[in-house]
Amino acid sequence: MRNLLQTKVGLRIKDLRAAAGLSQERFALKIGMDRTYLASIEVGDRNVTLQNLSKIANGFDMTLSEFFEGIPRIAPNE
Amino acid sequence: MRNLLQTKVGLRIKDLRAAAGLSQERFALKIGMDRTYLASIEVGDRNVTLQNLSKIANGFDMTLSEFFEGIPRIAPNE
Repeated sequence: MRNLLQTKVGLRIKDLRAAAGLSQERFALKIGMDRTYLASIEVGDRNVTLQNLSKIANGFDMTLSEFFEGIPRIAPNE
Repeated sequence: MRNLLQTKVGLRIKDLRAAAGLSQERFALKIGMDRTYLASIEVGDRNVTLQNLSKIANGFDMTLSEFFEGIPRIAPNE
């Protein structure tokens, strides 16, 4: 079963990317991340690191706090 | 040279922990994290993962967005 927090963060990225009209390929290129890795983050398969979270937030011209808006508190094992 | 983002996040944890009047040992126990690992995060030595960031934010009864308040946008290689 996929991790709820990782899934919600992946969906947040997908929504922001769609709102910005960016394909996965163009956004991955923009932030210097491998496209297939970005794809795996978006489906919730990755326990993403702070540095990659920051790259992603920067890619949307957001602070980390702005990026995580709307992501609720989730207990670790949910 | 320590990574600026990791250092700022470490300081944020230290400040919140001090404000809550919690020792490193008691906060590590509270969130189920090894104390020495928490110590290494606080000095900016760790590229912390999403799950551990969530554990830490939860430990302060905060959402991730609340936890990252005050952390500015930092270019990846700063």
